[in-house]
Amino acid sequence: MVKKIEVKTSKREEILDITREVEKAVASLGVEAGVCYIYVPHTTAGVFINEHADPSVVQDIRETLARLVPYGAGYRHLEGNADAHIKATLVGTSQVVLVEGGRLLLGTWQGIFFAEFDGPRRRKVYIKVLEG
Amino acid sequence: MVKKIEVKTSKREEILDITREVEKAVASLGVEAGVCYIYVPHTTAGVFINEHADPSVVQDIRETLARLVPYGAGYRHLEGNADAHIKATLVGTSQVVLVEGGRLLLGTWQGIFFAEFDGPRRRKVYIKVLEG
Amino acid sequence: MVKKIEVKTSKREEILDITREVEKAVASLGVEAGVCYIYVPHTTAGVFINEHADPSVVQDIRETLARLVPYGAGYRHLEGNADAHIKATLVGTSQVVLVEGGRLLLGTWQGIFFAEFDGPRRRKVYIKVLEG
Repeated sequence: MVKKIEVKTSKREEILDITREVEKAVASLGVEAGVCYIYVPHTTAGVFINEHADPSVVQDIRETLARLVPYGAGYRHLEGNADAHIKATLVGTSQVVLVEGGRLLLGTWQGIFFAEFDGPRRRKVYIKVLEG
Repeated sequence: MVKKIEVKTSKREEILDITREVEKAVASLGVEAGVCYIYVPHTTAGVFINEHADPSVVQDIRETLARLVPYGAGYRHLEGNADAHIKATLVGTSQVVLVEGGRLLLGTWQGIFFAEFDGPRRRKVYIKVLEG
Repeated sequence: MVKKIEVKTSKREEILDITREVEKAVASLGVEAGVCYIYVPHTTAGVFINEHADPSVVQDIRETLARLVPYGAGYRHLEGNADAHIKATLVGTSQVVLVEGGRLLLGTWQGIFFAEFDGPRRRKVYIKVLEG
């Protein structure tokens, strides 16, 4: 079974902490031990895992990606959002987290982040857990 | 069981849409629901998921990687393809896609791309599906 | 069941070949066929798969990341290790390798590397195998 989380952004580039939503989806699937997959079915958004104690970390990630892959820097793709496709590719389309005792086995400082690079948009994130 | 797809490139850097080949491999494995793994057993090639409607998107991805990690820019590795190893690392060695109703649960605009950074070569891509 | 590997670095940035340790963990789990997950529960370290025949390849990867995301380049995060968080995000928090005949199905030149960007530290890497 695949759970679908709804995500809403209000800016062109926005990184949202979705750890609690993923935790809830995993709890609702009722799997004691296994592997959780977090999958973004979009092409200008991605998902990554990093520090969620200090929100400035994900701002640094966003700003560094914007410096490395600038908006509107003479790309071929005519929709004007080529930078967003490239950033999403660098960040990644999916993440995997182990599940133990019915919970995500995240490190102490780790959170799960949805990264939109061409918002504002309403998006979906798929959550699945394989038992084992 | 692991399915092996053969991929052939004709240039040094080439990004190939392998969505249909992965779909076929998944169909042949006959799993109704689960998780599909796409794994590249090479070190100068990778796999990523992004837009496959407009082919200029993957050209932008390739050209941006070439700008960030230029060919022949004074690397230590003496084989002359250090840039290809680094690009493959940034893009990723594997991807995961959920499977539902016996098919890949890709987003509307998503395709699966094999990215060679040191071709032309004959390569293999491994496909596996875990049921669940 | 989740196996935990201990990793120890002696420099700020250090990339360690952990292929043998992962192989051992997989062998001890006694799974004939399936998928192995290598997960780093830290936020300034990551894991990637690339060439392990010539150690200069991973040096090139480290030095290129250091050029793209320089240490101390005016980041917001006040702990002074923002570059390490960003590098870990680009490299990735986890990797997946297929398992066949009780062994990792790595390519001829592939090794698994733990990448610390804010050491020296004692770290853990989680290993899990799903059967199938």
